[in-house]
Amino acid sequence: MSFQANVSAEAISVRQSAERLRILSVLNDLHLKYKSLQDGRVADYIPQLAKVPPDLFGICIATVDGQIFEVGDYDYLFTIQSISKPFVYGLALEDHGRDYVRTRVGVEPTGDAFNSIIKLDERSKRPHNPLVNAGAIAMTSIIKGTDPTDKLNRLLDLFQRYTGHSIFADMSVFMSERTTGHRNRAIAHLMLNFGMIDGNVDEALDLYFQQCSLMVSCRDLAVMGATLANRGVNPLTGERAIAAEYVRDILSVMFTCGLYDYAGEWAYRVGLPAKSGVGGGLLAVVPGRFGIGVFSPRLDERGNSIRAIRVCEGIVQEFGAHIF
Amino acid sequence: MSFQANVSAEAISVRQSAERLRILSVLNDLHLKYKSLQDGRVADYIPQLAKVPPDLFGICIATVDGQIFEVGDYDYLFTIQSISKPFVYGLALEDHGRDYVRTRVGVEPTGDAFNSIIKLDERSKRPHNPLVNAGAIAMTSIIKGTDPTDKLNRLLDLFQRYTGHSIFADMSVFMSERTTGHRNRAIAHLMLNFGMIDGNVDEALDLYFQQCSLMVSCRDLAVMGATLANRGVNPLTGERAIAAEYVRDILSVMFTCGLYDYAGEWAYRVGLPAKSGVGGGLLAVVPGRFGIGVFSPRLDERGNSIRAIRVCEGIVQEFGAHIF
Amino acid sequence: MSFQANVSAEAISVRQSAERLRILSVLNDLHLKYKSLQDGRVADYIPQLAKVPPDLFGICIATVDGQIFEVGDYDYLFTIQSISKPFVYGLALEDHGRDYVRTRVGVEPTGDAFNSIIKLDERSKRPHNPLVNAGAIAMTSIIKGTDPTDKLNRLLDLFQRYTGHSIFADMSVFMSERTTGHRNRAIAHLMLNFGMIDGNVDEALDLYFQQCSLMVSCRDLAVMGATLANRGVNPLTGERAIAAEYVRDILSVMFTCGLYDYAGEWAYRVGLPAKSGVGGGLLAVVPGRFGIGVFSPRLDERGNSIRAIRVCEGIVQEFGAHIF
Amino acid sequence: MSFQANVSAEAISVRQSAERLRILSVLNDLHLKYKSLQDGRVADYIPQLAKVPPDLFGICIATVDGQIFEVGDYDYLFTIQSISKPFVYGLALEDHGRDYVRTRVGVEPTGDAFNSIIKLDERSKRPHNPLVNAGAIAMTSIIKGTDPTDKLNRLLDLFQRYTGHSIFADMSVFMSERTTGHRNRAIAHLMLNFGMIDGNVDEALDLYFQQCSLMVSCRDLAVMGATLANRGVNPLTGERAIAAEYVRDILSVMFTCGLYDYAGEWAYRVGLPAKSGVGGGLLAVVPGRFGIGVFSPRLDERGNSIRAIRVCEGIVQEFGAHIF
Repeated sequence: MSFQANVSAEAISVRQSAERLRILSVLNDLHLKYKSLQDGRVADYIPQLAKVPPDLFGICIATVDGQIFEVGDYDYLFTIQSISKPFVYGLALEDHGRDYVRTRVGVEPTGDAFNSIIKLDERSKRPHNPLVNAGAIAMTSIIKGTDPTDKLNRLLDLFQRYTGHSIFADMSVFMSERTTGHRNRAIAHLMLNFGMIDGNVDEALDLYFQQCSLMVSCRDLAVMGATLANRGVNPLTGERAIAAEYVRDILSVMFTCGLYDYAGEWAYRVGLPAKSGVGGGLLAVVPGRFGIGVFSPRLDERGNSIRAIRVCEGIVQEFGAHIF
Repeated sequence: MSFQANVSAEAISVRQSAERLRILSVLNDLHLKYKSLQDGRVADYIPQLAKVPPDLFGICIATVDGQIFEVGDYDYLFTIQSISKPFVYGLALEDHGRDYVRTRVGVEPTGDAFNSIIKLDERSKRPHNPLVNAGAIAMTSIIKGTDPTDKLNRLLDLFQRYTGHSIFADMSVFMSERTTGHRNRAIAHLMLNFGMIDGNVDEALDLYFQQCSLMVSCRDLAVMGATLANRGVNPLTGERAIAAEYVRDILSVMFTCGLYDYAGEWAYRVGLPAKSGVGGGLLAVVPGRFGIGVFSPRLDERGNSIRAIRVCEGIVQEFGAHIF
Repeated sequence: MSFQANVSAEAISVRQSAERLRILSVLNDLHLKYKSLQDGRVADYIPQLAKVPPDLFGICIATVDGQIFEVGDYDYLFTIQSISKPFVYGLALEDHGRDYVRTRVGVEPTGDAFNSIIKLDERSKRPHNPLVNAGAIAMTSIIKGTDPTDKLNRLLDLFQRYTGHSIFADMSVFMSERTTGHRNRAIAHLMLNFGMIDGNVDEALDLYFQQCSLMVSCRDLAVMGATLANRGVNPLTGERAIAAEYVRDILSVMFTCGLYDYAGEWAYRVGLPAKSGVGGGLLAVVPGRFGIGVFSPRLDERGNSIRAIRVCEGIVQEFGAHIF
Repeated sequence: MSFQANVSAEAISVRQSAERLRILSVLNDLHLKYKSLQDGRVADYIPQLAKVPPDLFGICIATVDGQIFEVGDYDYLFTIQSISKPFVYGLALEDHGRDYVRTRVGVEPTGDAFNSIIKLDERSKRPHNPLVNAGAIAMTSIIKGTDPTDKLNRLLDLFQRYTGHSIFADMSVFMSERTTGHRNRAIAHLMLNFGMIDGNVDEALDLYFQQCSLMVSCRDLAVMGATLANRGVNPLTGERAIAAEYVRDILSVMFTCGLYDYAGEWAYRVGLPAKSGVGGGLLAVVPGRFGIGVFSPRLDERGNSIRAIRVCEGIVQEFGAHIF
């Protein structure tokens, strides 16, 4: 309903340069402002995670027209952890369609902490949503493939489409999670008990641990977010990573369930679809505009990167990106 | 970043007429389509509510530029019930500012049913959010005013600004709720026990029961929604109903907590800030565009109007209004 | 099935004297041993309770043949608080019979702390047992009487039969509990909501607060316990305090539900029907043998008198009184 | 304190015969009375259990002086299931002493159903008690032995001491539980996660499934109960099955936690230490007097044998065996 006057291409170019400078300046300011913030603790539930240098700090914005803005340790590789969940959910939607997937997982937030005791919706025989561990394992367990290797390759392809380059796993993190992931193993057996998943539990868990141990940079997260912001097409490569019709599904659950029991606060203060991981990453999406990737490994007690949350708040304030 | 060509005023006018016709046509179709849907039950926890003719069905859209589209029983008056909660939350924000209000109520969804047993966040000494009964009572209890009458008048003024006309209460519903609202009385005493509210419990409950028994039409709901869509200014009267800075607060909690334990499903399928009431009303907001008001008294087991949910899904599909 | 030889009356008398001396010696030893134990805190949720001198310490044993053994502050009067609950439960059983009473309250332990959030068995529409606050209020609410005064007099008569003398209330504790008992008021309104109680909530709560503020000594507790140990007949007065058929009901719930979430530990270590009160009293019953009353106002975090628990453990060890 | 006259051996013999006849008569009456009761359903969570003929019905009483009274299908072998738990708890106490065992398992009832979702006491890092599955697995996991076979042999020896004869496992039930025991596997992994158990989960689960699949008759249950009633000495063989000092521990937890969420009701109505199993068995102990074993495979919704509960109520009424 709004109308804008014609403008010359030259004027646009000038304006774009100014905007580029402003974005870079905002990111630099935020990086400087929060670099001194050393609250929180690096995740240490497996030794491999505890080894990450705690001071690392990178910020990246990737726009839907393919521009990249980055500052700090933007290319340091860390494990994607839970940030993989919404993307695998999207693949499950592509593999099986919305109707079937909805029989295996709900879309309701739980209000629970990330490390809460197992909580399953026994009535509906579904995990609450695809971003809690139970739901994520259920999604991983239905990814199509002829055998475990094929399924893993399909996941690697998926993340390659989203990031624009090959993706690798941190094998020591994988082995470590596989050995110590007793809670996830408990969740899987309990879902088996309730008929929420079927098939080979050990294979599904292996694939899930592999997916969590994939290595990304915050630049990758920004591009992945930009791909969602761009309705499924990677703005760097022009390749479609996910069918457009399922982008809304992914963004909706990220919005309501993306930050554990901080979800309501996040929706209130930042107001963007997002997902955090205990590796220190945070990915947020400004639909139609850009993706945000932040990396800083010190976590609050909810398992979210402390600096990353502050940076997102800052970006939202500067660019009016809150969804409301 | 999008650019549109200059267009003549005449062309605009023609296009607007066509758009008007299309909107009316969509509403008529939805009304026709769901008129035969007779699932669900009228709320009967108090006798007054059970008396509402169950077949009533009205739909209204009010746009931010002041247009009204309405069909069916659009001017039938019913009690606003829980739909009053986000608006009183806004008044509390205006009365006390965000910082103080946040000490009295959170913004986290609970995942609980509307009739769930009392659940308070004992750790934070705050109700979870302003749209559960506990949080709503806490908000009502801090509305400023020299005495009970003054506080009630301030609420009436508030809803007058939002609807554009005087508002009245259904006294028999008020008396009925006051007499039988044992659960709400229990909630209030428990909050008193935890120091979550202070002052006179009976006065606060009276004001709360009064607020719930205010009578509105679905046309009123649409205009109230349009006022929020218009960042706080009533598009019919031009009067500001709420400071622009608090609109985001209201919309955020409506989005994550507006439909009880259907909140995640609603965010997923409809994707709009909304609030339902057991009187049969449903209000939804398409930010920057329009407000939706629907009235149909038959409720699902979650306490939401069955037809109203379907109508909102239809409107969102037709007009691409899902927030993602 | 055991057989004992004939013995002369004289020999019995000598043996009894020796036994008397031994009991007194045990009580003195325990009093001396635990007098220096100053762990725990006096209840302070109402100012009146906090005023009790924390060092007070009395122990009393009353046998079913009417002997009294006492040491320390055995005649200091404190408020009976929750120790009144099993006795009022017995009166409710006499007033209405087992079948009716069982429709109003269950007999299942809850495993909850004494100050836990309200928890009601919504399925059965009954409080879990008569020793949680909800169940106790439900029992008090059905005590027969023509009016509030008559009901109170019936309670006073009840405790007079159990103790053998007139009983009085601490009015300042009563007024204090009445003013600040928000949680109990919440419980009562919630039960009203679920149809678990009926009638006048404020009257029932007044009677409940009165019952809790009755003043007893640990000597009284011992005699009350001995009356239960003696199948309902006060061994001092020979008066029946409760019909014999209901003594088993009272002892059963005291055994499984008497010490809040310490009930299992208590059954394991002490193994006697018992009830504690936040006033610092503890009453235990050795069926067929004797009653124990202990008073020491410092409580553990579960609301049980710390010294009293130790004393009971000591008595059980010395006299082999554990039920198994 | 009671005194009895000398009686001749002859008179005793006559009285004993009369008592024997009375006991048999009571058991026959109860068997006849409840044979027609066909409520409830045979456990069917594994196919092997569902195959048991539902009409089977046996009752046995074994006294501490070695008399056996039996009626109906008293020698039919069924799987012991959860009735094994208190006995393995006793072995754990003998293996490690009370102090260590108490660090691995509590003694508090949970109030939960037998098939409730996993509930662990995260605060104390211990399962609530040794009769819930989590606690039972924890106990089995600490049974001493050089290897899995040695541990199994120690369990077989244990039950041989209690029953007086060799005990065998139902291999098809074992294999079936091992394959389908997803919930127990989940529990074990979750306990591993919380550090509540250590060592090899699969080995511990195998031993646990073996223990549950041991075959006993209701006669065996009665003798096992009589052994506990006799403070640990098998009244048939004179062999000690468990150190006397731990009998109290076993009886205490059986009393408060033996019948799942029916525990309070059981303590109230029957008032005996007892344990039920989904195989249809029920074992109860009248300390100092006799053990009761009942077998009838139809279960109520709580997982307890319906006829067995009624039979125990009848026995308690006839012989005044309620502990209070």
